[in-house]
Amino acid sequence: MAPSVALEWLNGCGEAEFVDRLGSVFEHAPWVAAAVARRRPYASADALHAAMLAELDGLREPQLVELLRGHPELAGAQARAGAMTSDSRAEQGSLALGEIADDSAATWDRLNAEYRARFGFPFMLCIRRHTRGSALREFERRLTNERSVELRNALAEIGRISRLRLAARIVDHGLVDIAGRLTTHVLDLSCGRPARSMRIELHETGPAGRRRLLEAETDHNGSTGSALLEGEPLRIGRYELCFHVGDYFRRRGVDAADEPFLDVVPIAFGIAEPEGGYHIPITVTPWAYATYRGS
Amino acid sequence: MAPSVALEWLNGCGEAEFVDRLGSVFEHAPWVAAAVARRRPYASADALHAAMLAELDGLREPQLVELLRGHPELAGAQARAGAMTSDSRAEQGSLALGEIADDSAATWDRLNAEYRARFGFPFMLCIRRHTRGSALREFERRLTNERSVELRNALAEIGRISRLRLAARIVDHGLVDIAGRLTTHVLDLSCGRPARSMRIELHETGPAGRRRLLEAETDHNGSTGSALLEGEPLRIGRYELCFHVGDYFRRRGVDAADEPFLDVVPIAFGIAEPEGGYHIPITVTPWAYATYRGS
Amino acid sequence: MAPSVALEWLNGCGEAEFVDRLGSVFEHAPWVAAAVARRRPYASADALHAAMLAELDGLREPQLVELLRGHPELAGAQARAGAMTSDSRAEQGSLALGEIADDSAATWDRLNAEYRARFGFPFMLCIRRHTRGSALREFERRLTNERSVELRNALAEIGRISRLRLAARIVDHGLVDIAGRLTTHVLDLSCGRPARSMRIELHETGPAGRRRLLEAETDHNGSTGSALLEGEPLRIGRYELCFHVGDYFRRRGVDAADEPFLDVVPIAFGIAEPEGGYHIPITVTPWAYATYRGS
Amino acid sequence: MAPSVALEWLNGCGEAEFVDRLGSVFEHAPWVAAAVARRRPYASADALHAAMLAELDGLREPQLVELLRGHPELAGAQARAGAMTSDSRAEQGSLALGEIADDSAATWDRLNAEYRARFGFPFMLCIRRHTRGSALREFERRLTNERSVELRNALAEIGRISRLRLAARIVDHGLVDIAGRLTTHVLDLSCGRPARSMRIELHETGPAGRRRLLEAETDHNGSTGSALLEGEPLRIGRYELCFHVGDYFRRRGVDAADEPFLDVVPIAFGIAEPEGGYHIPITVTPWAYATYRGS
Repeated sequence: MAPSVALEWLNGCGEAEFVDRLGSVFEHAPWVAAAVARRRPYASADALHAAMLAELDGLREPQLVELLRGHPELAGAQARAGAMTSDSRAEQGSLALGEIADDSAATWDRLNAEYRARFGFPFMLCIRRHTRGSALREFERRLTNERSVELRNALAEIGRISRLRLAARIVDHGLVDIAGRLTTHVLDLSCGRPARSMRIELHETGPAGRRRLLEAETDHNGSTGSALLEGEPLRIGRYELCFHVGDYFRRRGVDAADEPFLDVVPIAFGIAEPEGGYHIPITVTPWAYATYRGS
Repeated sequence: MAPSVALEWLNGCGEAEFVDRLGSVFEHAPWVAAAVARRRPYASADALHAAMLAELDGLREPQLVELLRGHPELAGAQARAGAMTSDSRAEQGSLALGEIADDSAATWDRLNAEYRARFGFPFMLCIRRHTRGSALREFERRLTNERSVELRNALAEIGRISRLRLAARIVDHGLVDIAGRLTTHVLDLSCGRPARSMRIELHETGPAGRRRLLEAETDHNGSTGSALLEGEPLRIGRYELCFHVGDYFRRRGVDAADEPFLDVVPIAFGIAEPEGGYHIPITVTPWAYATYRGS
Repeated sequence: MAPSVALEWLNGCGEAEFVDRLGSVFEHAPWVAAAVARRRPYASADALHAAMLAELDGLREPQLVELLRGHPELAGAQARAGAMTSDSRAEQGSLALGEIADDSAATWDRLNAEYRARFGFPFMLCIRRHTRGSALREFERRLTNERSVELRNALAEIGRISRLRLAARIVDHGLVDIAGRLTTHVLDLSCGRPARSMRIELHETGPAGRRRLLEAETDHNGSTGSALLEGEPLRIGRYELCFHVGDYFRRRGVDAADEPFLDVVPIAFGIAEPEGGYHIPITVTPWAYATYRGS
Repeated sequence: MAPSVALEWLNGCGEAEFVDRLGSVFEHAPWVAAAVARRRPYASADALHAAMLAELDGLREPQLVELLRGHPELAGAQARAGAMTSDSRAEQGSLALGEIADDSAATWDRLNAEYRARFGFPFMLCIRRHTRGSALREFERRLTNERSVELRNALAEIGRISRLRLAARIVDHGLVDIAGRLTTHVLDLSCGRPARSMRIELHETGPAGRRRLLEAETDHNGSTGSALLEGEPLRIGRYELCFHVGDYFRRRGVDAADEPFLDVVPIAFGIAEPEGGYHIPITVTPWAYATYRGS
């Protein structure tokens, strides 16, 4: 993808250049960019995105359905064959939906077929907000909806997809509601101070199995420096933070039995708001701990 | 094994009957029972056991080593062939040490051989106080000891083994320090009441993998009625209690997202004192929980 | 008051003796006892009390009002002059309502007068379930009720008063819902064990000022041996438990600054259910504590 | 006092102006400023203060004692008569030590006299780091020291006093270790969100009685906007934060009895490090709360 540019540049460039840059924000629908190019300038990326969505709101149903039909199916044949736009490939690739096992592929194929048969257009989902588990569950749930509801859902998902695509194309875009944040903190209640140098792992758990996402270590503030996850949507799903409490207290000379009462402390939690803030700290002694969703 | 009898009966019976009942308390050493039979009566099972151990304390080293040599190796060839006394079979059977996989068997064989080569007698361990993981670790650790230390350790372990065997043979034995206790409790801090009908699972975890030990449900007091584990030693090792918090709050009508923040809450802990009391409660809301080793 | 007697004795004695013993359970209304005496025997104190209350349910309003008028006013002139039945004296005495200061007396006199003017009978309240503060608030609140509501309230309060009086007259009465229970517990999370020998004070707080009710010390279980309060109703009101945490950790050699972070830890709480169980434990380190209404 | 000036100005001004500005940083000892004026420029206020203290380190004992004798006694006759330098007046005034009751005055007079008789110079204390209670206790404790220890203590206290005075005279001074910080936070664990609009009071408690220092309200982040205390040393002493939890939950429609279990939640704590950070949050439901010294 071309490097991102400033909003000012987009406000000042020629129409062709504008469409060249933003035409792919809506899948196979460069006409959206062309339409809004004529109404420049835009005071903010938010205003520009709102203008784009307004174009879609004006569509009559046959046109909308045609737009939807331009999108690839999730983990569909097109995905597995690599025959998607680069944006779609990157988005689906984030979940490795093109590399799923054959039995999973059968499930997705069935769902895609059912959905298309029932509604006449492919299933729309902003996949960057989902884990495989939540995407599948969402798919199954939405299959039971009325067609009018799914037309609205499809528009909403296209709004989310295009917002993230737009953010990737504009430097310092200032768009809100496009990223979540996962942070943690460890307070050692046996000495009333932040726990320093405690190892922490973050795992994605869920129906598809357990996958380690990252590893971090607390600093002298009991935090991990930067957020564990930030800068993009948090994927809806289940996770586990593992705090290496036993090693920490052993290093501090706490007289531990061979089997310390607390060793690796797992905190299992769900993320339901991809653009939310999840602060999940623990307070801990060698014999107790507490956690909560903080702020 | 014969049904257990009352201490009064043991105090009053003939010497042959006494040895018949208690001769196998020490492996292949009915002479211990014979020796203490002559000094009856005993005011308590504790006094009887103390008298038995006093016989061992009087042994010179060659005699003690001979006694030790009467014991089978842990998970050894004898165990796998089923050629042990019924007591040893039951004890080792509690960990299914006779059914370990071939690669594990090689490890045990190596440790048994090294130990016997180094000390001249088999490794003594009251296996009913151990999980496979802690037994292996103990084995490796004790291999590095001085011989004099291991003679003392062997005597101590025989004391524990015989104490449990004696307890199994005497009705209402009143012996202390032969059993631990694991209990839990769930308090719902969102309403200030015990959490009723919450499902709980107990797993043994550790190097040999994860194994579900039992499942329980909280009653109207937030407890599980009886203790989760009691009546015998708690095995040294690592465990996990899993509390089905998400289901509980869903039934109470808490408006949960598709992915509730808390669903199955795992509390991972170690047991280091087989005869100790482990009370491991949680206090919980849909957004927070705390646990500790209580009393 | 005469020593309490067994239910069997009451079932077997003469009618005169029965009325002699139980006539005063309802203030100036020995006819209730006389009426139920004829229907003996009773299987339980509960059945006896139910029979007594059934007599009252049968009253027409003029008779009921006459019964109510037999009761003294709370902290009224009669109380202050000591001209009450011994039961009423004991009950009101429990709050020292006969010894209130002149300005308070004026408040009570005003409320008593307003109530009697409005409803035609004195204010009924089972004073042993109340602190002065809650009694006053209840008085003011009930003054705004309809007369029919207050007739029902008066009957309910007479039920409570007579139940406590009956309990005092029958040995091993087995009556439920006549007593609450306040307990506590201290767990030291820095060592994972109950906190032993920690001093605890219980204060009644509230509009009338602060009054120390009792002092206790934790035992080796972290409890206070017996309950802090039990055997009678807990008085509705506000309380404070003070835990001498600073002294406890100082004795354990925790290196405390001149001003330890935690010294005397106050837990302020309200009691709203006189017959309820209030378990109010703390878990504590030198730097943190938590409390909750437990079970 | 003259308005504060920039370090650059102090580095560039004439010697007389320099001494005019900074001569009173050490009580009745403008020669310190004069001495360091000659060694300008200073890269930081810290370097300047270090140079000043180095002058004192070079003093022989008689000169040092003379310097100490230039300081007023705490709450002494001079203070009560208002005959101090404006700095001393401001410092002692911060605790209203000039307005203490006669019986307290007698205590201070006795301590001042004993101290001076024992050591030959007045008691030095950076009073802005103390409450009355901690100042008195410090006084009594230091009276039992060796003279050599008290000479060192006096120098250390003069270092603290002069540092705060210097900070008041230099704009953007960048001096560290001259201020502490008290903050709080309230998290509502019944909904997993910060508690908004909860009233909080901060009281100083201690031997001299209870005094409300300030009142605040939580914002939508559960914090109080700015810190409760900051910008100057926290006074060593005992404090109480009172959280109006009952009102908060009542407004949120929690069905509370007349006497809610939690109403005003008091958190009593000590401050021992005047330049420290004290973060004292609570997590709370209508039935439970926890607090800790956080970071």
